[in-house]
Amino acid sequence: MMLSRCTMCKRRNAMYMRPYSGEKLCATCFCRSVEDKVRATIAKHDMLKFNDKIAIGVSGGKDSMTLLSILAKLEKSFPKARLMAITVDEGISGYRDEALNIAEKFCQKLAVEHIVVSFKDLFGFEFDELAKDLIMKDPSIERLTPCAYCGVLRRRALNTAARNCEAAKLATGHNLDDETQTILLNVFHGDPQRIARVKPVSSAAHPKFIRRIKPLCEVLEKEATLYAYLKQIEFQSIPCPYSYAALRNDIRTMLNRMEEKHAGLKYTVYRSAEKLRNHIGEALPATGLNSCKLCGEPTVHAICQPCKLLENFKLYRG
Amino acid sequence: MMLSRCTMCKRRNAMYMRPYSGEKLCATCFCRSVEDKVRATIAKHDMLKFNDKIAIGVSGGKDSMTLLSILAKLEKSFPKARLMAITVDEGISGYRDEALNIAEKFCQKLAVEHIVVSFKDLFGFEFDELAKDLIMKDPSIERLTPCAYCGVLRRRALNTAARNCEAAKLATGHNLDDETQTILLNVFHGDPQRIARVKPVSSAAHPKFIRRIKPLCEVLEKEATLYAYLKQIEFQSIPCPYSYAALRNDIRTMLNRMEEKHAGLKYTVYRSAEKLRNHIGEALPATGLNSCKLCGEPTVHAICQPCKLLENFKLYRG
Repeated sequence: MMLSRCTMCKRRNAMYMRPYSGEKLCATCFCRSVEDKVRATIAKHDMLKFNDKIAIGVSGGKDSMTLLSILAKLEKSFPKARLMAITVDEGISGYRDEALNIAEKFCQKLAVEHIVVSFKDLFGFEFDELAKDLIMKDPSIERLTPCAYCGVLRRRALNTAARNCEAAKLATGHNLDDETQTILLNVFHGDPQRIARVKPVSSAAHPKFIRRIKPLCEVLEKEATLYAYLKQIEFQSIPCPYSYAALRNDIRTMLNRMEEKHAGLKYTVYRSAEKLRNHIGEALPATGLNSCKLCGEPTVHAICQPCKLLENFKLYRG
Repeated sequence: MMLSRCTMCKRRNAMYMRPYSGEKLCATCFCRSVEDKVRATIAKHDMLKFNDKIAIGVSGGKDSMTLLSILAKLEKSFPKARLMAITVDEGISGYRDEALNIAEKFCQKLAVEHIVVSFKDLFGFEFDELAKDLIMKDPSIERLTPCAYCGVLRRRALNTAARNCEAAKLATGHNLDDETQTILLNVFHGDPQRIARVKPVSSAAHPKFIRRIKPLCEVLEKEATLYAYLKQIEFQSIPCPYSYAALRNDIRTMLNRMEEKHAGLKYTVYRSAEKLRNHIGEALPATGLNSCKLCGEPTVHAICQPCKLLENFKLYRG
């Protein structure tokens, strides 16, 4: 097969064909196009101010490493903006250590401050302990999957750490695939109102809540990965040992199959959710959050999810 | 494998396991459960009155034949209700003739009046002629798939025929699979507001519009088919030669795969759409329809879809 020329620069050889647009791109133009898309997403949704202190949740996986790399590049045009990376150490032995090293090394290279917060320090236990107890199923207690527990606690850890650093925004590496999977997951779970929560910038407001932004939300997962490869960014690729998301995995596979046959479909699903959000939005409670009665942290309920889960966890432990 | 006993009658051998409920059913109890579900759907959505004249759109396929069979059975408890069947002859040679015979024979057996309306009589051409012209693509005219044309014209034909027979309701054989496919199709097409139109009873109102009902909307396609087999109802199983629905077919396959792994998922998608409908509903135009400026038939626009398509068709023909 003859290598085609890059349709953007018309000089170098193309190495990637973007199925939904038909563009053939060289490595340089591909990376620039991803950066441009992130810049456009940030501008469109008014994600950042020129002087924001931005905390990035960096797990060490491809998405957050790509996000860190791109934001570090964009930040150079904004001398008053500051970046910092936060890694949550859940306490998952044989898994999180590698990610911590990868994140630490990359932050040093980029000269970005790197903070590690641990479940142990924040909540008093390692995730391994909680997971072990979760597995010892006590049928009298209604339980969620390990991922649900971990997600709730990790979001709390990120918010607390970002607040302690006086960050104005908390950026996470959610990509287009994550977002479309969540959209369909909500439909397949019978919770379509939650589609209203899938959005590029969180709208919740509370003095203790750091606004979350998702600058990669319009970047395909495979393009975030390709970016990391082309930029020779090291990332952790082994999955979490507790990873358990049967329905989400099936949705991921299905969406990938559909996208292969109907290029651009993930974008269409994302646009559909944007439209639905406008309809659902009004029916949701106002954007002001309550303060949890137990810990004072922001929550939509009276008691926050982390407190509920920790209470539950104490019950198992007896 | 030992045959289990039917979990419903506890006497006969089961021949079907309903995955989403775990019930094991004998043929008799299975058929009764489908009839009960249809009766419950009709009651829940207030689809029928005791003295309604009900027109059933009968294509000769499994769904409409099952619907006809079940409604004929239910009607016996309502001496003042009357049933009639309408088959639309689109003019698709080698396809529709068989279906017409099958529908006619079954109506005779059930002693249900059977009416045939043809595209030729109503619109002046057979669908074969239109399809031939559609295939002779003139790129200057924006065109829909043959199915889209046929659907619009068939719905008009059914409405006109039902009105001419002074029917109070027009029942169609849409099953749960059809409805969930349409729901996801709308999301995948970027038209999620149209989810509001996927409903068991049409809410549109116009003196010339016969209210549409879908009594099978909570019956799985495979259960509608199994019902027809068990009741030895003859039906047409060859697909339409113009059948063209790439994305819908992919969605069908995907939903069937997902349902196999996550029994009950189609019901959950359907419930999700019900919830979304409540949110979207208010943003849609009021339920009163306009009269088409060209033909006077009910329409949400100024000119009805059939008139637009027929105008388009005239353009091709030159």
